[in-house]
Amino acid sequence: MQNLPFENQRCSVAAALGEVGEWWTLLILREAFFGTARFTDFQANLGIARNILTARLNKLVETGILTRRLAPGRGNPRLYRLTDKGREILPIFIALMQWGDRWINDGDKTPVRVIEAATGEEIARIGPQSRDGRPLAAREMRIVPGPGADPATRRRFGGPRSDAGHSLQEDHASPR
Amino acid sequence: MQNLPFENQRCSVAAALGEVGEWWTLLILREAFFGTARFTDFQANLGIARNILTARLNKLVETGILTRRLAPGRGNPRLYRLTDKGREILPIFIALMQWGDRWINDGDKTPVRVIEAATGEEIARIGPQSRDGRPLAAREMRIVPGPGADPATRRRFGGPRSDAGHSLQEDHASPR
Repeated sequence: MQNLPFENQRCSVAAALGEVGEWWTLLILREAFFGTARFTDFQANLGIARNILTARLNKLVETGILTRRLAPGRGNPRLYRLTDKGREILPIFIALMQWGDRWINDGDKTPVRVIEAATGEEIARIGPQSRDGRPLAAREMRIVPGPGADPATRRRFGGPRSDAGHSLQEDHASPR
Repeated sequence: MQNLPFENQRCSVAAALGEVGEWWTLLILREAFFGTARFTDFQANLGIARNILTARLNKLVETGILTRRLAPGRGNPRLYRLTDKGREILPIFIALMQWGDRWINDGDKTPVRVIEAATGEEIARIGPQSRDGRPLAAREMRIVPGPGADPATRRRFGGPRSDAGHSLQEDHASPR
């Protein structure tokens, strides 16, 4: 994590980015989701320099996102596997892919699709929902201080309007 | 985007990361979702250097994620607002926040919560679903080549087992 003001360090988005936001790191995790486990396969599939791959894999093992174990075989190959923490990165991965498909590689340019195995249908667009499964627009949600909020966060998202919290508005693009 | 093998360049995860994966960029977008619009407010809320903020905002305007307009007032303040492309980053943002809350800032350390305004309840955990709203585990999904797949991607995810595609398996962590 970088040297940042306190409020940014406590932000879970910033914290998550600190562990998985680096360019190569998320592509390594993409490979791990595709079933890649051996150092040499990561290297071949990604076209990544050996020293960069070593550094990124070491960090992913340190942060508990991948496990490393030695497998039997010539040269004692090391196998890298996703932990529970690593497997739960899947929603981040799918959210990035769907946004990239829609806004950058749209239509004929979409390189891969994610389908439900049982039906062959493309999966739904991922998005925020209520506990009972209703899709929520940004304007229907509020940010409120959590139990670990520092004083600056409490002032910002609590304060006199603390019942309402701070709105995540969709309509800020229009003039006000 | 970095200088990468062709397959990585076409990957929508890589493409999305190229536009929003930079550390400061996603924190700037966090602020935009919170309603921050003025250059000076981004600067004050993030504690970011002026030259870095300028460069990141310029790139976000170039890639069509933010719009910039001049507002009336002393010094002609510039206002930055999310476009539709920018607003659709929200699922990425929430996926990162929920993962960070769960695996880094868990329990008492959670800095903010996202609630449904109407009920006050915390929103659901974001995750992949079928078209009719059933949650899907990784092993229930497959990767198949899309219309823009290059030959390498077709070989990898199509091939002789092309009906099944390539599984996104959950159980790779166990020895096989």
